[in-house]
Amino acid sequence: MADARVNVAHVGLGAIGREVVRLVLRREGLRLVAACDISPDLVGASIAAMLGEDQPGPDGRVTVVEGLADAGLEPGDGLVVTHTTSSSLSRCLPELLGALEAGAYVVSSCEELSYPWVQAPDAAARLDAAAKAAGVSVVGTGVNPGFAMDYLPVVLSGATKRVDSVRVHRVQDAGVRRDPLQAKVGAGISRDEFDRRVAAGSMGHVGLTESAQAVASALGWDATDTTETIEPVVAESPTPSAFGTIEPGSIAGIDQVAVVRVAGEDRVRLHLQMAVGIGPSQDDIRLTGDPDLHLTVPGGLHGDLATAAALVNTIGSIRHAEPGLRVMSELRPPRPTPARG
Amino acid sequence: MADARVNVAHVGLGAIGREVVRLVLRREGLRLVAACDISPDLVGASIAAMLGEDQPGPDGRVTVVEGLADAGLEPGDGLVVTHTTSSSLSRCLPELLGALEAGAYVVSSCEELSYPWVQAPDAAARLDAAAKAAGVSVVGTGVNPGFAMDYLPVVLSGATKRVDSVRVHRVQDAGVRRDPLQAKVGAGISRDEFDRRVAAGSMGHVGLTESAQAVASALGWDATDTTETIEPVVAESPTPSAFGTIEPGSIAGIDQVAVVRVAGEDRVRLHLQMAVGIGPSQDDIRLTGDPDLHLTVPGGLHGDLATAAALVNTIGSIRHAEPGLRVMSELRPPRPTPARG
Repeated sequence: MADARVNVAHVGLGAIGREVVRLVLRREGLRLVAACDISPDLVGASIAAMLGEDQPGPDGRVTVVEGLADAGLEPGDGLVVTHTTSSSLSRCLPELLGALEAGAYVVSSCEELSYPWVQAPDAAARLDAAAKAAGVSVVGTGVNPGFAMDYLPVVLSGATKRVDSVRVHRVQDAGVRRDPLQAKVGAGISRDEFDRRVAAGSMGHVGLTESAQAVASALGWDATDTTETIEPVVAESPTPSAFGTIEPGSIAGIDQVAVVRVAGEDRVRLHLQMAVGIGPSQDDIRLTGDPDLHLTVPGGLHGDLATAAALVNTIGSIRHAEPGLRVMSELRPPRPTPARG
Repeated sequence: MADARVNVAHVGLGAIGREVVRLVLRREGLRLVAACDISPDLVGASIAAMLGEDQPGPDGRVTVVEGLADAGLEPGDGLVVTHTTSSSLSRCLPELLGALEAGAYVVSSCEELSYPWVQAPDAAARLDAAAKAAGVSVVGTGVNPGFAMDYLPVVLSGATKRVDSVRVHRVQDAGVRRDPLQAKVGAGISRDEFDRRVAAGSMGHVGLTESAQAVASALGWDATDTTETIEPVVAESPTPSAFGTIEPGSIAGIDQVAVVRVAGEDRVRLHLQMAVGIGPSQDDIRLTGDPDLHLTVPGGLHGDLATAAALVNTIGSIRHAEPGLRVMSELRPPRPTPARG
């Protein structure tokens, strides 16, 4: 009897990538066939050892190689590459093109890939052409971008006759998240340092503009007039964090807004607050139209857990997508397939 | 320049059907090419006159014919048939097969079509074969079934690593809905009459079992062990309704539950309460798993408005679906396309 499992090769073994591999090992419909990372410390290690899994099953014997080309994979067998290396599309581009040219479907956490048509039209066109030439598809996703602030509001719009505007407000208490997220939002740094990082373009969440444009595009609106702002969330009282107490006046996190305007009107407004102690976490979506609609996720969609889940859950969706570079709203809903018994 | 609009033919001009036609006329990407109803009172009337539209645009000149065969449509031009005639799949089957055999995509409000594989496997197989032979696809949808209690929980599952159970609680205050909904839930009838109607199978919401099975199937669970119960909501105090005051002890509405069990455990539990004065309306979804997730729609998704919207919003999704009989979770998210300027 043919094995109906889907072959999965993973690229990028950081924290999210390891969680992706862990999930792939646990799903009965998936088979891990390769794991790649450029770090010399990881190449040659077994996945089971790297994850510290006692009972990894046969797929845990996969040994880390540097890149997909070293994995000796056969093309054209419905292979899906899950990819978690960088937020930057220009950095990811050679890896993504290589996977597509080898005939693999690709699901990537690269934030700038989630809607690259406005910011990176040349890269988007190259990926689209490579995917179509190979008869496969590629998408950038995760919880944000990819779900909370773009896919979910588009889904909600399906139940209304007309949408005039989309407002999303996402609050994530970084105090309950892993250290890298607290570092990313600048927990504990000074206001001066915050301003320096913003000026250098190294501060803030990557992908908010892409989410806003993805929503606009899905609703048939011109997505080119987009603005994004970032402000600090300043601690008002001593706040415990992963890096010690944040003193009043120091930075607790970020307050970021992306807006798409059409004919002078704000049509999409995405507001993201990620800071230590800012809770309660939540996702809140409001559509004005006919009728208005309001959706809320009390407690919010957990960023790290949900991003690894969203990637693995999208493996089935990408294999049913039309060839080319896709955005999430063109895919059938991702969902978790059953775990091994 | 080619007209990029999608041709739409509508079948069934009841209240929901008329709202569908109204929406089609208003969308810039859609062109109404036919409208059908078997009622002799409607055949020959212009759509504009029937809807009482002052400025219907050129598509409003379409004249109602009895059936699709009378409309003189050319097959194979990407035609989509929107269909709102009956909840009963056996009643709809000839119409649906006729549309598919003519090469049209079909989006239908037939509740039993939303997941027919368990209750009506023969009809499902015939529809699937006819659609595949013509290279088109067909789906049953609406707000419920089709969105609130099935599509939305499946979408939410995309952000979690594992789902153990799905619980949906939908409350609709029938007091703020149109008369047919109040009649459907038995507003004002006696307990004896309620029991008679339940025994005759003519009481309650059609499609709850299908929604529960659609959720189970999308998550990879066996959907065959399904039970459904219906209880009355009894008025506790005098309650105004479309049919006069409901006296205490008389029926205000229905309380319906569908459960899918797998290996002895309740995995999907859908609870629907529709009654006069039961508010506030809401949709509430809880997934247990890793992590648990909770989503709520305060005010709820309006049944009538949302069903017409969901049908028209699905026109784009069905044209991108794989050929065959589809369930909603296999389709990319429906969304409203722009209205005419």
